[in-house]
Amino acid sequence: MSEARTLSLAEIAARLGGEVVGNGQTQIARVASLAGADAQSITFLANPKYRAQLAGTRAGAVILAPAARAATALPRIVAAHPYAYFARVSALLNPPRPEPVGRHASASIDASAEVDRSASIGPHVSIAAGVRIGAHTIIGAGCHIGAESVIGAHSRLYSNVVVYERCRIGMRAIIHAGAVIGADGFGFAHEADAGGGAWLKVPQVGGVVIGDDVEIGANTTIDRGAIEDTVIGDGVKLDNQIQVGHNVQIGAHTAVAACVGIAGSARIGRHCQIGGAAGILGHLEICDGVTISPFSLVTKSIHKPGVYTGIMPLAEHRNWLTRAAHLNRLDELAQRLADLEKQSKR
Amino acid sequence: MSEARTLSLAEIAARLGGEVVGNGQTQIARVASLAGADAQSITFLANPKYRAQLAGTRAGAVILAPAARAATALPRIVAAHPYAYFARVSALLNPPRPEPVGRHASASIDASAEVDRSASIGPHVSIAAGVRIGAHTIIGAGCHIGAESVIGAHSRLYSNVVVYERCRIGMRAIIHAGAVIGADGFGFAHEADAGGGAWLKVPQVGGVVIGDDVEIGANTTIDRGAIEDTVIGDGVKLDNQIQVGHNVQIGAHTAVAACVGIAGSARIGRHCQIGGAAGILGHLEICDGVTISPFSLVTKSIHKPGVYTGIMPLAEHRNWLTRAAHLNRLDELAQRLADLEKQSKR
Amino acid sequence: MSEARTLSLAEIAARLGGEVVGNGQTQIARVASLAGADAQSITFLANPKYRAQLAGTRAGAVILAPAARAATALPRIVAAHPYAYFARVSALLNPPRPEPVGRHASASIDASAEVDRSASIGPHVSIAAGVRIGAHTIIGAGCHIGAESVIGAHSRLYSNVVVYERCRIGMRAIIHAGAVIGADGFGFAHEADAGGGAWLKVPQVGGVVIGDDVEIGANTTIDRGAIEDTVIGDGVKLDNQIQVGHNVQIGAHTAVAACVGIAGSARIGRHCQIGGAAGILGHLEICDGVTISPFSLVTKSIHKPGVYTGIMPLAEHRNWLTRAAHLNRLDELAQRLADLEKQSKR
Repeated sequence: MSEARTLSLAEIAARLGGEVVGNGQTQIARVASLAGADAQSITFLANPKYRAQLAGTRAGAVILAPAARAATALPRIVAAHPYAYFARVSALLNPPRPEPVGRHASASIDASAEVDRSASIGPHVSIAAGVRIGAHTIIGAGCHIGAESVIGAHSRLYSNVVVYERCRIGMRAIIHAGAVIGADGFGFAHEADAGGGAWLKVPQVGGVVIGDDVEIGANTTIDRGAIEDTVIGDGVKLDNQIQVGHNVQIGAHTAVAACVGIAGSARIGRHCQIGGAAGILGHLEICDGVTISPFSLVTKSIHKPGVYTGIMPLAEHRNWLTRAAHLNRLDELAQRLADLEKQSKR
Repeated sequence: MSEARTLSLAEIAARLGGEVVGNGQTQIARVASLAGADAQSITFLANPKYRAQLAGTRAGAVILAPAARAATALPRIVAAHPYAYFARVSALLNPPRPEPVGRHASASIDASAEVDRSASIGPHVSIAAGVRIGAHTIIGAGCHIGAESVIGAHSRLYSNVVVYERCRIGMRAIIHAGAVIGADGFGFAHEADAGGGAWLKVPQVGGVVIGDDVEIGANTTIDRGAIEDTVIGDGVKLDNQIQVGHNVQIGAHTAVAACVGIAGSARIGRHCQIGGAAGILGHLEICDGVTISPFSLVTKSIHKPGVYTGIMPLAEHRNWLTRAAHLNRLDELAQRLADLEKQSKR
Repeated sequence: MSEARTLSLAEIAARLGGEVVGNGQTQIARVASLAGADAQSITFLANPKYRAQLAGTRAGAVILAPAARAATALPRIVAAHPYAYFARVSALLNPPRPEPVGRHASASIDASAEVDRSASIGPHVSIAAGVRIGAHTIIGAGCHIGAESVIGAHSRLYSNVVVYERCRIGMRAIIHAGAVIGADGFGFAHEADAGGGAWLKVPQVGGVVIGDDVEIGANTTIDRGAIEDTVIGDGVKLDNQIQVGHNVQIGAHTAVAACVGIAGSARIGRHCQIGGAAGILGHLEICDGVTISPFSLVTKSIHKPGVYTGIMPLAEHRNWLTRAAHLNRLDELAQRLADLEKQSKR
């Protein structure tokens, strides 16, 4: 995310493919939205509904799909997937700020830990016995890594991430600040024989296993398994403040939006998309390719790909009051309807 | 929140205004509720429904509105807004515990950072290159401030707050423990051309801009913008565990209760109130002066001030089972009703 | 959670009771599920619906209830409460990894704090003035304990827990990473007299009082009281990412699943169970022995034990669209039904 670098359209296409139309020497310093662009910006059109904005953009260049090739006279790059192409251009123009290789003087690292020499260990980090940290991995300030945990190469943990003991995280992970990996699952036995109905803690002896190319959002929590492991597949993307219960399995390339809660032992398929603040009850199964709408609760297994929703519509409050009253007597309404039907058949 | 200080009613009124009725030399050591007060306490009556409790209070003094002036014989202060007045008295009686000015020996501060001499930097803090910290600002233990971020004067970050790089926080901010400002928004392009349907990260190159007099609750997360900034207006109050997605804009003096999720690019007006665990979908707009009830999801833009609600009423579980069954056939019920209507017209 | 230790069935029964049936010298190294067990594993059958799996298990031994005593020919322990017994066996086989007694060199501990000699204070911890830490208590890396707070004996705080000033936590507490105890409650007075409708902060001068044997999940937040204390009873179990507002009271042995929000001044009874992502509005009361289903919002006090639910059922999206349309005209539907009834009575 530095500022000095510029690239010409021709240089961009040389690295990322696509066809340059117009002046290939146009210099690009930054990415921008259609509305916010200036002469040194490259922007993109992926959704036809923004065509009107395209007419007014002051961008230096635009990325377009083949079908929109003629939609502007600006210098442009024609690419099959404009938004993905834009993401790659942005990555070229905004390389991550480099972190110093080696161990910050204030880090506390157990002698038995194996930290690759190319890794960067930030201030106030603690790394316990037997931990292994892969090549080029960055451990941000204030992270704490529990005993015998493993973090793969080319990963980045931002500040104040906590990884409990015996967790395994793959390569190229991105874990945002405040995430907690491997805390105890919520497992208690009802001690029926003890007086007073107290709860007895069930030790959570499984771990957490996270695949490659996983991103985990800020303050998200992934609990360790009760007996076996909690498993997050390759390429899974988890947004902020998600709760993943013990023994959950999430299939590869599933994306979960913020504030979702996934109860213990739920199994979610591959390529699913779970909307924000949705919920998934425990011990059920969701097949591959399912989309759950935001704010919707999954209470049973889903065996058919598709989109599923359970949202209570919003209304002006006084209308909602009436609606809630009707909902509270929905049984009576149905009964009255059945009575009328019976009567009309006589 | 010390204990030794007492103030007379006359001294309080001299500083805060209001009219003393009764013995102005009454000494006040602390604030209290009507029920919990003792002879050294001052309490308040703001809501007429607590008048009965007023009769039984053992408080040394009471703050009342002009209309309730005669509601007690106790020494009292008559003020237009008793609850606001009470808040100010409490602030007088409970000054914040002072933090030592200067830098704790264990803090790790980049040489290029500009930390005002009057600021207090706690233990195990890290402050990266180019950061600026204003006068009298307190950075609590274990906070990490990313490169080039700016925190205004008279602000307080409690412990373990993380601010990513290039964020700007205004004056008099209060940010509670575990909050994360500036983590990446949840932005991925579907790489349709890549095999396997993997997600491609879209670099999040915007920042976060937070106005003056903003309070942010514990473990709340505010993501940085994808391209432009995420913007929080002056005087906004955010409770705990709120998620603010990338490019959200929240207007001045809006208050958001705990556990709310606000999806990317939503724009919320000024003087709104968002109830606990409500949700706001992305790319929509809420005008000024809107109240959203708790647990309600906003799925469309709102252009008219008012109160909006979408709560599924609670019921005894067996009644809910019946109700859910009716909801699952609501379409059929409506059809049967239409059939009857048709029949009755014949 | 070490690995070397094995125990014979006879040794287990000698410590925990129960009746050994079959070879008491069977050596047990670990606990396992019925499906995942091997010859050195002990597993359990608590729920009759897993009887089929019992037939196929390769476990070395099984824990069963008296009624299921003859359900297997494997070596076994017969115990009244197999799951609770299993939890105890797991605790025997998986003793917690010991933490070094004493203070890590990097910890910052105020001279006036009283830290028991048997306590373990981890790296990068800060402990403020007047704090007291009980015997055998473990304070994990990166925890920060505010002035005058007290943490009872035999407690464990995992990494990056923040306890604000003047909070009291009982004995045998387990607090997971990222939890925040004692942040300010969300209390603001509307400053009607000030221009612009700004909010005025009400100082939060109460504390948090937590009983004995309480477990608190990762990134859970418990706010301090506004005037009096927030109170969590003995034996309460809180899962991850729960928000407990100011002045809430939770009765003994109540269990709260992840992502629940409890608004200010709510009072929850003893032995309640609150399902995941449920909500409880402020200033209401829930009696002892109430179960709230997941995703359900409590909007009124509950005075009768039982199970309460308010879930909007999930549907395929196109069906939900129809259903939502009907819900939006539920009032009209009810009116049409009433019209038909009137007509049919003529």
